[in-house]
Amino acid sequence: MREEFQADLIEVSRLLVTMAESVRAALRKATTALLTADLQAAESVIARDADVDAIYAQVEAKVADIIVRQAPVAVDLRRAITALHISADLERMGDLAEHVAKTAARRHPSPAVPAELRPVFKGMAEIADHMAEKITQVLADSDAGLATELEKDDDAIDDLERQLFKIMLADDWPYGAETAIDGALLGRFYERYADHAVNISEHTIYLVTGEPAAGQQA
Amino acid sequence: MREEFQADLIEVSRLLVTMAESVRAALRKATTALLTADLQAAESVIARDADVDAIYAQVEAKVADIIVRQAPVAVDLRRAITALHISADLERMGDLAEHVAKTAARRHPSPAVPAELRPVFKGMAEIADHMAEKITQVLADSDAGLATELEKDDDAIDDLERQLFKIMLADDWPYGAETAIDGALLGRFYERYADHAVNISEHTIYLVTGEPAAGQQA
Repeated sequence: MREEFQADLIEVSRLLVTMAESVRAALRKATTALLTADLQAAESVIARDADVDAIYAQVEAKVADIIVRQAPVAVDLRRAITALHISADLERMGDLAEHVAKTAARRHPSPAVPAELRPVFKGMAEIADHMAEKITQVLADSDAGLATELEKDDDAIDDLERQLFKIMLADDWPYGAETAIDGALLGRFYERYADHAVNISEHTIYLVTGEPAAGQQA
Repeated sequence: MREEFQADLIEVSRLLVTMAESVRAALRKATTALLTADLQAAESVIARDADVDAIYAQVEAKVADIIVRQAPVAVDLRRAITALHISADLERMGDLAEHVAKTAARRHPSPAVPAELRPVFKGMAEIADHMAEKITQVLADSDAGLATELEKDDDAIDDLERQLFKIMLADDWPYGAETAIDGALLGRFYERYADHAVNISEHTIYLVTGEPAAGQQA
């Protein structure tokens, strides 16, 4: 029974990997849409968010099925429930990628991000992309070392967000309120995406090992 | 067994009501902090967010306990799992109230919100407060009619957010980028708070009745 349960959890992890790959692809494409004012890319991200939602529903059904069939208790039950938290975080990451795409689409054909801010967003997007890649690896191999790396990545994103604000709040900021508002909201979308990635890596360590990750929050 | 399960769910609902009351009180106080530059109020909200997190952990433990003891299947299992979604939404509402408080604290002794924006935030805060109150009622009595009201409230918050942006994007906006950025982020905190309230009312109808609420999303 225990082995079967373990096999079931691995199957759930596979669904979560698919979800993680989707939300990674979504943010990559949304960033392209943002930085190159590519409307088609933006629309594709917006259209495909439903795919992520569909896998989310599958994870929920699969976890319910495991609980009924295997009647896990104690740590095992909590591990199964943790899969639900991970999929909720991934679903939210998909939403945040969609928000980036929507901002790009709303401003099209103008770029939503002026030249001065582009390097910062490029930096945030690159780190966020590495984070999504590492999540996929943590979900596939439960490499606990990667969880620590993700926290460092998250700090780097926070630093870039501070830099973003510094540029926008400088006395010689040449753009008006609208561009500052878009910049602030976009910065927040990337930062929240990274936060969810950190949550996921911590949850995943628990999902796979039953041991809380170092620094894990309740 | 079925009756015992129902009683267990009611006990979980009670914990959720306590959480809902806390996040309602948190946003009320955070709004006071924001609109009157009251540092003490802001610090109290920030300090008390841990209470909400503690109830969140209790709900999770209680639901796990119910699943193990009652071994619910099908709709009943999903109802138990729904309680976890509700508590996650409530926990996030607490975080958002804390973000409002932190913005007020960061700008203290200056007000974070200029006079021009105060009526909009007062309006958003009032509607958000009614929404939190209604959630408490839905959790206590599962009044499905309130779920419909919450959607209307959510539309009203979205309208106020649009009005907020309109004011900040007007040609004669007298403040710089910093105030616009704070305004946009604050608007988003209230708007997300309202979104979670709508999620909760839909989930609650399911929790209590086992029937999806009208318009419920996957």
